[in-house]
Amino acid sequence: MLKEFKYETKVYYEDTDAGGVVYYANYLKFLERARTEMISSFELNNKKLLNNYKILIIVKSINIEYKKPAQLEDKIQIYSLIKSISKASFSMSQKIKRNDEIILNADIHLVTVNQEGKPVKIPEILEKSLKN
Amino acid sequence: MLKEFKYETKVYYEDTDAGGVVYYANYLKFLERARTEMISSFELNNKKLLNNYKILIIVKSINIEYKKPAQLEDKIQIYSLIKSISKASFSMSQKIKRNDEIILNADIHLVTVNQEGKPVKIPEILEKSLKN
Amino acid sequence: MLKEFKYETKVYYEDTDAGGVVYYANYLKFLERARTEMISSFELNNKKLLNNYKILIIVKSINIEYKKPAQLEDKIQIYSLIKSISKASFSMSQKIKRNDEIILNADIHLVTVNQEGKPVKIPEILEKSLKN
Amino acid sequence: MLKEFKYETKVYYEDTDAGGVVYYANYLKFLERARTEMISSFELNNKKLLNNYKILIIVKSINIEYKKPAQLEDKIQIYSLIKSISKASFSMSQKIKRNDEIILNADIHLVTVNQEGKPVKIPEILEKSLKN
Repeated sequence: MLKEFKYETKVYYEDTDAGGVVYYANYLKFLERARTEMISSFELNNKKLLNNYKILIIVKSINIEYKKPAQLEDKIQIYSLIKSISKASFSMSQKIKRNDEIILNADIHLVTVNQEGKPVKIPEILEKSLKN
Repeated sequence: MLKEFKYETKVYYEDTDAGGVVYYANYLKFLERARTEMISSFELNNKKLLNNYKILIIVKSINIEYKKPAQLEDKIQIYSLIKSISKASFSMSQKIKRNDEIILNADIHLVTVNQEGKPVKIPEILEKSLKN
Repeated sequence: MLKEFKYETKVYYEDTDAGGVVYYANYLKFLERARTEMISSFELNNKKLLNNYKILIIVKSINIEYKKPAQLEDKIQIYSLIKSISKASFSMSQKIKRNDEIILNADIHLVTVNQEGKPVKIPEILEKSLKN
Repeated sequence: MLKEFKYETKVYYEDTDAGGVVYYANYLKFLERARTEMISSFELNNKKLLNNYKILIIVKSINIEYKKPAQLEDKIQIYSLIKSISKASFSMSQKIKRNDEIILNADIHLVTVNQEGKPVKIPEILEKSLKN
């Protein structure tokens, strides 16, 4: 993917913790929502990938750098970029911003697996979209 | 509020459980997002209510009837209606639908409290909006 | 069940929100953990019920009264009591306490369903345990 | 800390997703529970650190390698090890196991901050425990 995919969401009470900011695990939900919306922008979705192509996309590794906390009612933007693609996996970089401020940076390695969890070739239709 | 407030959201992996449907507690997150967006439609928000009026809106009781499960990738609509208002509390009915199907019905009693958790009069600006 | 089943857990950051207390939906997780541990005390579990008896226990309705908020690091006790049993459903009352203080009271109606979500008779082994 | 701190927990419905396994963000909750229990084993806790020492411990970065998925009803063990300590931060390695199988490995960098989010020196009482 040559250009970043942008997805916007908002911080609700459910996302925050008693520290007054977004709970550190909940940012991973925002990242996953953004990846899901990126897949949807390819006219695909997790359900279709499972039903028609018998695959799931799972996270193999993730590196996150927390830069600034997001807070209740914040509108945040998640930017997703495909960095490389191989036979049964691909790498992405994602960042969460609040307008000009960087909230966090993430590097993620994803693998396509079958329902038994074994790595399988990325379906052509998905591979093509990831490369565009 | 004479008319229902409508809010739409989508079911992501984070919302589901191993039963393949939305986890029963997570519907309460959708209900809260819808209430937050209703408050926002009054040009208010939870942060303003806390900073400017020193109040929080808390849930005192909730009755939920689960009718049908929502599933991954479903687009769901949450309808929120103010049913009655008293000095320091108000009642709402909320329902979650997937187009024509009812997912759940909820009756909720909410109270305005100060930061110590004591009930306080609903701020006039909020009361006026709730009555409209 | 003639006697209450007691389960204890603790409030972590993940359970709280920016209001400084447990997020209202997260109490339902504590209730479900307690029900799961009650089932486990019968030498059964959700996995066995699904694999051996092809059933899931789902929540049909829940009424919750929030009395006092639980806070970070609180140790809380969840008491679960079977109130009535019919062919394919049963009712429970659950309460969450922090030692002598009541945090919340809940009434819950549960149904045993097959994997298609249709109500099915409660397996005898479970029925017997629920009645004890 | 010369020896690993061990904490055990169990996978409930709340932790899983429609893929049938633990949702990738929820492992971070298990890691945080384990860190909280490690702090408690020092006769400290998050509340005391905040009230008596005016500090919070926040995650600055995390690297996670997902090896195998955990599933409903699994009993999992989280092992936590302090790797290095500096003035206002420390590094840990954590792993989640299901008996002999590794579920995930994590490297985490934590910082002690004041309530404004500014890094502050690790309180002596905590530093001493981390070094033991």
